Amino acid sequence: MLGIFDSGIGGLTVVKKFLDWFKRDHLSYQLLYFGDTARTPYGNRGEEIIKQYALEDARLLIERGAKIIVIACNTASAVATEYLKNNLSVPVFEVVSPAAQKAVEITRNNRIGILGTRATINSNIYDRLIKEYSAKLHKKISVFKNNATLLVPLVEEGWLETVETKKIIRKYLLPLKMAQVDTIVLACTHYPFLLKEIEAKLNKRIKLVDPALEVVSVMKKYLKDNPSVEQGLSCSSKHQFLVSDLTDRIENLATRWLGEKIKLDKVDLK
Amino acid sequence: MLGIFDSGIGGLTVVKKFLDWFKRDHLSYQLLYFGDTARTPYGNRGEEIIKQYALEDARLLIERGAKIIVIACNTASAVATEYLKNNLSVPVFEVVSPAAQKAVEITRNNRIGILGTRATINSNIYDRLIKEYSAKLHKKISVFKNNATLLVPLVEEGWLETVETKKIIRKYLLPLKMAQVDTIVLACTHYPFLLKEIEAKLNKRIKLVDPALEVVSVMKKYLKDNPSVEQGLSCSSKHQFLVSDLTDRIENLATRWLGEKIKLDKVDLK
Repeated sequence: MLGIFDSGIGGLTVVKKFLDWFKRDHLSYQLLYFGDTARTPYGNRGEEIIKQYALEDARLLIERGAKIIVIACNTASAVATEYLKNNLSVPVFEVVSPAAQKAVEITRNNRIGILGTRATINSNIYDRLIKEYSAKLHKKISVFKNNATLLVPLVEEGWLETVETKKIIRKYLLPLKMAQVDTIVLACTHYPFLLKEIEAKLNKRIKLVDPALEVVSVMKKYLKDNPSVEQGLSCSSKHQFLVSDLTDRIENLATRWLGEKIKLDKVDLK
Repeated sequence: MLGIFDSGIGGLTVVKKFLDWFKRDHLSYQLLYFGDTARTPYGNRGEEIIKQYALEDARLLIERGAKIIVIACNTASAVATEYLKNNLSVPVFEVVSPAAQKAVEITRNNRIGILGTRATINSNIYDRLIKEYSAKLHKKISVFKNNATLLVPLVEEGWLETVETKKIIRKYLLPLKMAQVDTIVLACTHYPFLLKEIEAKLNKRIKLVDPALEVVSVMKKYLKDNPSVEQGLSCSSKHQFLVSDLTDRIENLATRWLGEKIKLDKVDLK
């Protein structure tokens, strides 16, 4: 069983990429999702609290049988990955390092932009990882970051194509455009919903990186190299989707974001 | 000791109104504040979770000596007041009913608008209370509501006077203006920060109700009528401000919102 958690239901966009892969490759892996909707969002919180929440989320999945953990949340990936690796005995995957690696690979002018939450940006994780990967490729890369906090509530309110959202996107992109980046990482599960609006504000030569796609690639390779882990993921049971708070709004968003109706079960974190 | 809690630090705007009153009337009441910054915001959450959080918040204050509880958060006031009254042995005050009462008193055309979070609006508490109070005054009042979810993150980002915020305010006010209300309740601690921008979009004859001011009036009257409770509030110690998550951003917002530098102490909810 493959466990995926997120600060809320934004992580279902990562789940969707996993399910697309399972379908394409006729895989019977079972997926267990947990969205911490009772404490969402994590993006503005302090490091200590994010680590605590992430560990509780991961443990909830492991107690229910997860053999691998995927942190779907960019904020938790940025802040809590090392902490989870040190405190858990199962393999931990996250969305930040695959995205950083991809950005390093595809940039041609060596100028990369990062759009993320306050906690992701402040963690400096992208700077650190990009420096590490680029050294291996003998590239010298400059990183430009902007905290795009308001995009999460705008997406959650369904204001995807409104004039107001377009104006706010332009404001957030401006410093990255001024810095002449040729690659931008959409470092939050919610941002890919605004892909069309973001692309409309950018020169066509600027490439966008979606961390969800990159973590699927990394997982594929890992399972190929580790058949014993791979064997523990299949199961005849259905995928399960757990949340810590459940409202009509959450159900509607979940259906819209995953593109199919799913059964969400509320669990108590304590 | 007077205990005040909020889903975050927005409640400091209510605290400010209390401190202004203490100063004006030379009162030595001690105030204990708790902001649940590790789980903020409550506005989009389900009723059950809001009730649970509100009870935990209030108990934290009572354990530390609060003799009266004030719910500064409109969402928690709307959803959890009855629940707290049934589960606590100290008097519980909240911001919704004083605001509803004030709106009923001042409306001349009997058309009241409410701007609040999703949970506050969906609770229907304002409709119920306004109906109750207006019956006493033999008024027949119509209530028009709009959920203004995005104003909270806009205020927290400090986007008070931006073009984008002004546009969003206009959008949220439009249905209330169309309904020709003459009174609007700003039913969230964050909205009074946008007072100037909100007033700029409205006819000057429309009156705005700030629940923070109204709960102070109610408390004054209550303490006058209940001298034994009143005597338990004074203390020579300083006011105390507790939060469940503490970051630089929270410290900066707190200072800005309260209008003075305060010491915030982080406490663990568990």
